[in-house]
Amino acid sequence: MNGERMIIRQVHVTPVAFRDPPLLNAAGVHEPWALRTIVEVVTDEGLSGLGETYGDLHHLAKVRDCANAVVGLDVHALNEMYARIAATVGGTVTDLHGLTGAATKEKSIDRVFSPFEVACLDIRGKAAGVPVSDLLGGKVRDAVPYSAYLFYKWAGHPGEEPDRFGAALDEAGIVQQAKLLIDEYGFASIKLKGGVYPPDQEISAIRALHDAFPGVPLRLDPNAAWSVATSIRVGRELEGTLQYLEDPTPGIDGMGEVAAAVPMPLATNMCVVTPEHFPPAMAARSIGVLLLDHHYWGGLVRSSQVAAMCDAFGLSMSMHSNSHLGISLAAMTHLAAATPNLTFACDTHTPWQDGQDVVKPGALRFENGAVPVPTAPGLGVELDRDALSTMNEQYKKCGITARDDTSYMQRFTPSFTATRPRW
Amino acid sequence: MNGERMIIRQVHVTPVAFRDPPLLNAAGVHEPWALRTIVEVVTDEGLSGLGETYGDLHHLAKVRDCANAVVGLDVHALNEMYARIAATVGGTVTDLHGLTGAATKEKSIDRVFSPFEVACLDIRGKAAGVPVSDLLGGKVRDAVPYSAYLFYKWAGHPGEEPDRFGAALDEAGIVQQAKLLIDEYGFASIKLKGGVYPPDQEISAIRALHDAFPGVPLRLDPNAAWSVATSIRVGRELEGTLQYLEDPTPGIDGMGEVAAAVPMPLATNMCVVTPEHFPPAMAARSIGVLLLDHHYWGGLVRSSQVAAMCDAFGLSMSMHSNSHLGISLAAMTHLAAATPNLTFACDTHTPWQDGQDVVKPGALRFENGAVPVPTAPGLGVELDRDALSTMNEQYKKCGITARDDTSYMQRFTPSFTATRPRW
Ligand SMILES: [Mg+2]
Ligand SMILES: [Mg+2]
Repeated sequence: MNGERMIIRQVHVTPVAFRDPPLLNAAGVHEPWALRTIVEVVTDEGLSGLGETYGDLHHLAKVRDCANAVVGLDVHALNEMYARIAATVGGTVTDLHGLTGAATKEKSIDRVFSPFEVACLDIRGKAAGVPVSDLLGGKVRDAVPYSAYLFYKWAGHPGEEPDRFGAALDEAGIVQQAKLLIDEYGFASIKLKGGVYPPDQEISAIRALHDAFPGVPLRLDPNAAWSVATSIRVGRELEGTLQYLEDPTPGIDGMGEVAAAVPMPLATNMCVVTPEHFPPAMAARSIGVLLLDHHYWGGLVRSSQVAAMCDAFGLSMSMHSNSHLGISLAAMTHLAAATPNLTFACDTHTPWQDGQDVVKPGALRFENGAVPVPTAPGLGVELDRDALSTMNEQYKKCGITARDDTSYMQRFTPSFTATRPRW
Repeated sequence: MNGERMIIRQVHVTPVAFRDPPLLNAAGVHEPWALRTIVEVVTDEGLSGLGETYGDLHHLAKVRDCANAVVGLDVHALNEMYARIAATVGGTVTDLHGLTGAATKEKSIDRVFSPFEVACLDIRGKAAGVPVSDLLGGKVRDAVPYSAYLFYKWAGHPGEEPDRFGAALDEAGIVQQAKLLIDEYGFASIKLKGGVYPPDQEISAIRALHDAFPGVPLRLDPNAAWSVATSIRVGRELEGTLQYLEDPTPGIDGMGEVAAAVPMPLATNMCVVTPEHFPPAMAARSIGVLLLDHHYWGGLVRSSQVAAMCDAFGLSMSMHSNSHLGISLAAMTHLAAATPNLTFACDTHTPWQDGQDVVKPGALRFENGAVPVPTAPGLGVELDRDALSTMNEQYKKCGITARDDTSYMQRFTPSFTATRPRW
């Protein structure tokens, strides 16, 4: 108890790939493999911590550069770590799909910083004997509710056997998928990824869900596939059925126009994705709900700061998800548990991961659609080194180096474009 | 390292009084005794932590109520602690001087929560063996610069001998006071508390300081004593001499009008003093600089969140001060050290405290106008129980139960009013 330090001595950066179903969205369709990068930070006191982030090659290269840049820092020195990472990242790192909005320099830094910060909090929690939620102000809920995240999807990847989820190409398929996920996980909220079919089909799907699951909060997210006029029409037609409408149209100004004309709040993980978006979005009254995501908001503490800003500006909160593994689910759960104003059920891709993971089983589970907050020190999850090795081999063999839903779709539908807005 | 908890078993709340010189401001004049409340939180593992807050009776009563409400909580459970304190505080607690702006319900809760939060961070720092700055992201500067905080003042309290600072009733007195404080502390920035004399006299004082200390950043703070028109006239006349002009006029809208018309940024610790003030102040473009103060922004972590909000909205930062003791100076220094965008020298009343303190000497010192960030675990200061006892006796005997600069002034100038704006 006398000024001891925990100095970062090593950082292991491991890209991994895991099987992903052919989930459809406005950018195209998920490829057969989803990529992630696992970051393991090791201190000179023998404690280690875990972080998880995107697997796209340009981003991975920056994470590797930064792994060297943070060696020698104390695990508390997050301001200095951020400065070093900012200097190392340098410019803007873009992704190919655009599904989390525009890339900016600040967002690029935040994205790279995130897994290091999470790993340091994991270490600090272990050292203090407390869960990461305690480092974020303490949990205000014992379990974090997640939503059933529905996707239109093919039965299987072309040339492969159908997967166990089967096809969902119309409203009947969507309702069936919802039943499957709710049966298995107990979800009490439903989100439909839209932007795939002409809006009237997706309106029908929402109405079918509304009829099949009366009283269950519903959301629709077309990933900015609609014009302002289309968004307003759809929003008005869906009055009374949606908890919120997520990113109907691109941009802060367009969202502001739609928000003023539709009866439900608009949510986003596309038009407000970095702190510099707050001032114009607040001025334009673009959104009523922010979907937090520690992977691009700069880790857990900075996400808490974003949550405080949402509270000040009267925004409600939910949480965004990309395809992820258990380290991310643990981090998301600790953050959501310790964020009082994050009151909507969070998104997660966990069902589509279908049991594949880099963490040992047992630490994370769903009960009635919610993940009990791990109470073990740190994140509460442990790396499964055999699984990590297997998934790293899969990464090397899968031939994918960056998520590209559009090119994959164009292999089967050469005329496909990811133009936003499309309708 | 296995889920241990540090449970709050006892909280000691001790009001104290210490001698204060007759410092003049828009509300009147400082009484002979300044009040503070010292909060000591004791855990079942034997660790204890310190917090310091206002001493006004209504506030003190709420702090005492809340001391009971937080017993049994873990020192990490800050969200739960905030909820309990919010429920206990109930309504709005006002002060008599209004020098930190309007009282609101949220601000009243934040003010009571603050010393408990600081004490818990002190404990957590001690338990982890790291300074509090490390719990806030790590220091980005080894010493925190403070400004020379000048006041018009009487030579001594009426009926008493002059104090060692002597009178400062005109620009010559102010320049002399600045020289004294700079000689003793090494300050490299200067703030003049205005709102005392007609604006032209205070303009002359700033010009005299500008001539006497070329290149030293200057600020003037009339505590909203001026109309919009007067503020604009003074701001324009002081072009080229002020780093910023602090709270020239009351209110978010008035400040916005002034901000649009004067050449220097406006700063505030009066019109934006609780999160709900952010949206209207950002819309009105009222301020360019926020003066952070963890005593009313809900402690250190919430102050970090406010700093993040300032960063997002392009506001610069400094730090506000009321009369305080060493626990507060330590907390302010840790916070400022760990806040990258707090780049202006902070305010402090330390020189007017003139050696009186509740903490043992040695932990805090000024070097070239800056306080080296304590590196010992926690806040790095230790309670001097003899001094605490003496100051508590002073509290009981001094006859003051709430700061009331206006009534004290009216004893000598019955016609005095604290009307804002006055000019
Ligand atoms: Mg989305
Ligand atoms: Mg002020």
